[in-house]
Amino acid sequence: MKEVRIGIIGIGNMGSTHAENIKKGEIPGLILTAVADRKESRREWVRANLGEEVVIFLEGEELIASGLCDAVLVATPHYQHPGLVISAFHHGLHALCEKPAGVYTKQVREMNEEAEKHNLVFAMMFNQRTNPVYKKMQELVEGKSLGEIKRVNWIITDWYRTQAYYDSGDWRATWDGEGGGVLLNQCPHNLDLLQWICGMPKEVQAFCHNGKWHNIEVEDDVTAYFTLENGATGVFITSTGDAPGTNRFEITLEKGKLVSEEGKLTLYELAVNEREYCFTATEGFKRPEGAYRELDITGENSQHIGVLKAFAARILSGTPLIADGREGIQGLMLSNAMHLSSWLNKPVTLPIDEELFLEELNKRREASARKENVKEITFDTKGSYGSKNGN
Amino acid sequence: MKEVRIGIIGIGNMGSTHAENIKKGEIPGLILTAVADRKESRREWVRANLGEEVVIFLEGEELIASGLCDAVLVATPHYQHPGLVISAFHHGLHALCEKPAGVYTKQVREMNEEAEKHNLVFAMMFNQRTNPVYKKMQELVEGKSLGEIKRVNWIITDWYRTQAYYDSGDWRATWDGEGGGVLLNQCPHNLDLLQWICGMPKEVQAFCHNGKWHNIEVEDDVTAYFTLENGATGVFITSTGDAPGTNRFEITLEKGKLVSEEGKLTLYELAVNEREYCFTATEGFKRPEGAYRELDITGENSQHIGVLKAFAARILSGTPLIADGREGIQGLMLSNAMHLSSWLNKPVTLPIDEELFLEELNKRREASARKENVKEITFDTKGSYGSKNGN
Repeated sequence: MKEVRIGIIGIGNMGSTHAENIKKGEIPGLILTAVADRKESRREWVRANLGEEVVIFLEGEELIASGLCDAVLVATPHYQHPGLVISAFHHGLHALCEKPAGVYTKQVREMNEEAEKHNLVFAMMFNQRTNPVYKKMQELVEGKSLGEIKRVNWIITDWYRTQAYYDSGDWRATWDGEGGGVLLNQCPHNLDLLQWICGMPKEVQAFCHNGKWHNIEVEDDVTAYFTLENGATGVFITSTGDAPGTNRFEITLEKGKLVSEEGKLTLYELAVNEREYCFTATEGFKRPEGAYRELDITGENSQHIGVLKAFAARILSGTPLIADGREGIQGLMLSNAMHLSSWLNKPVTLPIDEELFLEELNKRREASARKENVKEITFDTKGSYGSKNGN
Repeated sequence: MKEVRIGIIGIGNMGSTHAENIKKGEIPGLILTAVADRKESRREWVRANLGEEVVIFLEGEELIASGLCDAVLVATPHYQHPGLVISAFHHGLHALCEKPAGVYTKQVREMNEEAEKHNLVFAMMFNQRTNPVYKKMQELVEGKSLGEIKRVNWIITDWYRTQAYYDSGDWRATWDGEGGGVLLNQCPHNLDLLQWICGMPKEVQAFCHNGKWHNIEVEDDVTAYFTLENGATGVFITSTGDAPGTNRFEITLEKGKLVSEEGKLTLYELAVNEREYCFTATEGFKRPEGAYRELDITGENSQHIGVLKAFAARILSGTPLIADGREGIQGLMLSNAMHLSSWLNKPVTLPIDEELFLEELNKRREASARKENVKEITFDTKGSYGSKNGN
């Protein structure tokens, strides 16, 4: 194969951005041959913007079965992700899945199990893993030169959205249409980065507030407390109602502290391991010595284009992905655990009880209110995920 | 009265510092006439350092009854604070109480009730209220020009202590001797500032970890989630095991965000109220405009000396205190609520059930282990509460 013929299913905010990037030739080896969308207004946009050589389908399944594609990019509402990816595998197509991997882990586990049966490339659109700040944090924590993690505080409240955003689609911010709020839509990146850098928590207790800042039925404000495998604790605080929000990711380790904020990464490195110092120092109020320095962050932040390039290159020449599709379940597990903990009003241990989660989710889907007076709008998202810390 | 004759009960880390300041004439109108301490080593220090005119007692009650003092400064282990203050009132003495006001609110409520019966000056050593950064935050929040509070995040983990600190006194960090750990000893200032600036929470859920970083039976690591009266949520994260720790106090309001860190106070002020913007903006991903500026923080940070000066001036000429003694119960209520929530493993509403708290505390006091091999040390605390943010 010299070129990968790709089809995009779902041409909304994200799908249309990907389509334009591919169309402009930004991704060597990828040709956009087909798109699918259930909305006429979006198919109209395709006709007007992507040229006649792109075949347009109503249903993703038609695109998958068309023989026009070697790979698909699934950018539909979240519930449909696993089903479409599984179908793509059945038709021998490689798949790149937008985040989140799905809405509930049971569904995503089935997708992962299907992936295991095929020798096909499966990737997740975790474009924030290309951010050199987070890459550096991941390397430093994994490298253990700073010792074990002692505490994690991520205040990631800069996902501001207006009511107009929530009013722009009838599936948005409903239990039945989207399956959640800020945890499902905005935070999959952060939850993936959290587990990628710090490892999976073993217990989570979350406080989710539904429609706290907007007229929506799902959560737009979350504070989660968690415990890592080694006993370190952390918080993850997010919202779409804070302006200006904060994106400050702090990891305290035995031999120092990492803080990412405003696109900068600062390291305070200790001369000795604090755990040793604590038990050998003769002074009561003294602290181990160390110094701050801003880390030199080099390398481009290729974001979505980087993920697409790696996906194409993996298919064509076997080079590494940015994020394997099978890893999508981890961040979703965290998200599910936060929801479940908040619904049950108690701590939840991981891995979660998938059946119980689905049961609780389904209760909410049944009671989900269908939105009225929705004007379908495709917003220009440029700048919304390219902020200093790469949101 | 031209001069106030003051006696200090408890000449440990803090009491000795206060004694030296008064002795040096730093506080106009205060003369140190007596001290009391149960430890011979400390009485010896008084003889060697404070001169012969300072009368030395073994028991605080003897000092109170001696007729040598018009006022007392109580700087004993925490459990004794309310009893000694009440006794001082009975003898017609003014009282300045070191933080915390006591160990459990029931005891402190009795102290406050006694204070109401006497026309005596009663003050708390909340020296961090003199910090111009916190004063400014308090004024800005109270003034309402930034609207209502939406979120509070205080990461106050820079209370680092070594094992040697905990080994320096047999009462330290035991349920029976101190009644708690970082919440009772290091955080009373922060909990007071939290309620002073943001108002009292209505519900708290805390995760306290006992002896996580040190060989102690009480908590040295706490993450607390709380809800304010208006529904805003917050976290309060503290530890004596983090090096370097963080002191970052962030308050998000409807019209801006305040962040105090590294002795600086930054304000991001919005042009419009976010609550209005959210429901009137036609764009989905846009944010209300605004700008950051570092606030000019003027005024000296007089700390303990400021509190002592205000105490003396109140007695001599009726000028305002830095912190009224009756306000000490607020921060302690928060501390008690955090402990209780963690012990019961569930959220606790405020005001707390004082009887239940005392019952739970007493269980822990009964099981409290008496420390062995303790070397009594009076550390030099200079610099430990004078850090950039005034700890």
